[in-house]
Amino acid sequence: MKAVIRITLKNGVLDPQGKAISHALDALGFKGVEEVRQGKLIEIELNENDETRAKQQITEMCEKLLANTVIENYEFELTPVVSS
Amino acid sequence: MKAVIRITLKNGVLDPQGKAISHALDALGFKGVEEVRQGKLIEIELNENDETRAKQQITEMCEKLLANTVIENYEFELTPVVSS
Repeated sequence: MKAVIRITLKNGVLDPQGKAISHALDALGFKGVEEVRQGKLIEIELNENDETRAKQQITEMCEKLLANTVIENYEFELTPVVSS
Repeated sequence: MKAVIRITLKNGVLDPQGKAISHALDALGFKGVEEVRQGKLIEIELNENDETRAKQQITEMCEKLLANTVIENYEFELTPVVSS
């Protein structure tokens, strides 16, 4: 299975990186940008074909390592890997 | 409109951050991790309700600032913002 994990900052947590992007866009002349938030995108290929077990493993990885659950949310999608 | 942009490294481009995550997962006891790639996730709220124009603006932002198109791919989805 392949997992695509999105890790985003929780609402209310300051996002200086997002602010920097916002300012840079403004400096480049893009008007109308209201808010920018930056998160992380992690793609993991797992050697596991069972969806339930893959889901468990990815959840555990997020909780233990990938996301800081105090300030970040995570969500992920699992898709089967088509072997070529 | 709100845009969710995913920026990922092109195939063949080395990803040391992904490698580091992969090693860390292995050290934590997660077996069966085959490949990890890390990308960026950028969420932008645009003060623009026309989908075509929003698409143009986001594409331009990606080309000019957000993605390094030599080594990175980008893709995005636009969704209308429901005003509360």
